[in-house]
Amino acid sequence: MSKTRTRVVIIGAGPSGLLLGQILTRAGIDNVILENRAPDYVLARVRAGLLEQGTTDLLDATGVGERMRREGLVHHGLALTFNGEKHRIDLSGTTGGRTVMIYGQTEVTRDLMDARKASGATTVYEAEAVAPHDFDSAHPRVTYVKDGVTHEIDCDFIAGCDGYHGVSRASVPERSIQTFERVYPFGWLGILAEVPPVDHELVYANSPRGFALCTMRSNARSRYYVQCPLTDRVEDWSDQRFWDEVRLRVDPETAAAITTGPSFEKSIAPLRSFVAEPLRFGRMFLVGDAAHIVPPTGAKGLNLAVSDVRYLSQGLIEHYHEKSDAALEAYSGRALARIWKAVRFSWWMTTMLHRFPDQTPFDQKIQETDLAYLVSSEAAMTSMAENYVGLPS
Amino acid sequence: MSKTRTRVVIIGAGPSGLLLGQILTRAGIDNVILENRAPDYVLARVRAGLLEQGTTDLLDATGVGERMRREGLVHHGLALTFNGEKHRIDLSGTTGGRTVMIYGQTEVTRDLMDARKASGATTVYEAEAVAPHDFDSAHPRVTYVKDGVTHEIDCDFIAGCDGYHGVSRASVPERSIQTFERVYPFGWLGILAEVPPVDHELVYANSPRGFALCTMRSNARSRYYVQCPLTDRVEDWSDQRFWDEVRLRVDPETAAAITTGPSFEKSIAPLRSFVAEPLRFGRMFLVGDAAHIVPPTGAKGLNLAVSDVRYLSQGLIEHYHEKSDAALEAYSGRALARIWKAVRFSWWMTTMLHRFPDQTPFDQKIQETDLAYLVSSEAAMTSMAENYVGLPS
Repeated sequence: MSKTRTRVVIIGAGPSGLLLGQILTRAGIDNVILENRAPDYVLARVRAGLLEQGTTDLLDATGVGERMRREGLVHHGLALTFNGEKHRIDLSGTTGGRTVMIYGQTEVTRDLMDARKASGATTVYEAEAVAPHDFDSAHPRVTYVKDGVTHEIDCDFIAGCDGYHGVSRASVPERSIQTFERVYPFGWLGILAEVPPVDHELVYANSPRGFALCTMRSNARSRYYVQCPLTDRVEDWSDQRFWDEVRLRVDPETAAAITTGPSFEKSIAPLRSFVAEPLRFGRMFLVGDAAHIVPPTGAKGLNLAVSDVRYLSQGLIEHYHEKSDAALEAYSGRALARIWKAVRFSWWMTTMLHRFPDQTPFDQKIQETDLAYLVSSEAAMTSMAENYVGLPS
Repeated sequence: MSKTRTRVVIIGAGPSGLLLGQILTRAGIDNVILENRAPDYVLARVRAGLLEQGTTDLLDATGVGERMRREGLVHHGLALTFNGEKHRIDLSGTTGGRTVMIYGQTEVTRDLMDARKASGATTVYEAEAVAPHDFDSAHPRVTYVKDGVTHEIDCDFIAGCDGYHGVSRASVPERSIQTFERVYPFGWLGILAEVPPVDHELVYANSPRGFALCTMRSNARSRYYVQCPLTDRVEDWSDQRFWDEVRLRVDPETAAAITTGPSFEKSIAPLRSFVAEPLRFGRMFLVGDAAHIVPPTGAKGLNLAVSDVRYLSQGLIEHYHEKSDAALEAYSGRALARIWKAVRFSWWMTTMLHRFPDQTPFDQKIQETDLAYLVSSEAAMTSMAENYVGLPS
């Protein structure tokens, strides 16, 4: 067994683990990242790609925003389509000029990987059997196996950035954690295709046939989604059927403008809301998907993970640089207040835009009225916009 | 059988029937009101007493606002209390100076009765077996029995202002009408007491023990409500138990300030949302509670009835004075658009402020976050306020 020591062990080399590592490294705080997958596996994950301004600001401040600023697409609004008509929500005009950025999670991860490599900080990929220990004591440690050899790292803190299925949350005794969950009775069937997007901004559709979303990765690569039953399989959906369905769910003008093409990725994802509380267990902190999942409606997942990283990195930097634990003590409460607001917003957008199998005619009317009121009220559009671009931290 | 003729027969002498009659009479359009109860019975109904500015404006314009302006209490805001803290929503500051008025429905009815009497227009009280006929033809008529004699009134139009249990909607063939309904799994236990209100504005409370509302009829008469199971009976609730319960549901400061006293009215009311569509059936129009019911949260019931009256009276006046049926044709659609927005708002306030027996821990957190977000966001408070003071017609 090899034994080493660092200040912070970060479990997981997805965007939240890598971003936390980069911030700590730049602040002179030693850290090691352990990831049970290979780099290419991490990069192959297809995820959302809509960044709040607070997220892009933090990526800039961490020195990893250069390519994003060059290649990302800045959006000042979005469209809602229902009842055959398209309505624009002016995100910038209602929020004092704030914007969102289209830049794929994969690209964020790649930029952070490059920065990590350049910094010389340690990342152990394909680390097997990663396990946090003694985080309720003053001397936590993390063990893992690499190439058949068991390693142990003594540390001050552990950051669990290893996602919903990760070992970090699973290591907490059940009695110490409370979970909240809502599983939605449908999924999203999504495709990627090398076609220009139908609109320069996102188009969210509510229709009697269900939800649809027209989004993009770039000006040449589009992503489309349709709500589908969870019992559907990808094989049920030919490209032709998919494009036909999207066109039936958006307003006629948008339908006519869609450029179709062969899909090169097609998958069905379930939707759920999940929150685990608290986020701190002694000297271990949960970050991002390890503690909370939101449905993709509103694209809050990555942004919430980044805001967790912001709060936690502030706490760790204060601990080491100012010998104050105030921000670390506040981490769980501050992060959860913001998490619940984003969970509420994602739940609200999901509820407003999808058709639910158990929806009564009354519920259906309320949904239609929600949408009609929203696009008629400056205050309601402002409320939606301030959540969409990201509430203040 | 006695036969007479008028232009508009109004079924029901509650506030909507009386207001419609008053507007028509002032415009020189003959009308007769038929009411199956006695005047004192109508006046004895205890109902809400919060008037939107659009409602007070119409009462003024109809010449019945004088006493209301003298005795009514103008409110510029309201309070929400949850989690032990009270938050004020500035209604006027967020809506360009709009206000609401505390003035009991009974008082509105009394003012309208006095005006009706002064105008000399016909009101038949204690009219039995009122029945609309042939409203799908060019020659509608209404029959009723008074003192054992059957009467028939030929007319151009029938206005069904006779409430949820009235004969107007019940006369429409089932196949011609669509209904939407939500029944809430709790009631409101309300009391009236001769004590000064705890606050100069309304206080809406969400607490783990359920909803409570501190409101008033005047500076000397208070009305309090608590959410209760529908299985409760009034006899289960002594005044002492009631006051104790209210105090447990509001923030400590409000609890300490409540002046208690013997109740002189105590009743339990169920809560539901109900809408019937359309509002026009040939030459009969439904108005107010005859077509829609909202839960009392947000006090939209009377205000919606008044806005129906506004639209319908415009249509009838245009018909007679300008020989145009455009506004009459538009009545159902215009009124329903506004009705659904108020139904949505009442449903939203009810959902946000009550505890539901089937609420999951996730739902509970969403409710708490709804409230926390609301009082933190200028846009969300403005959206609530613009609905509370009344959306534009």
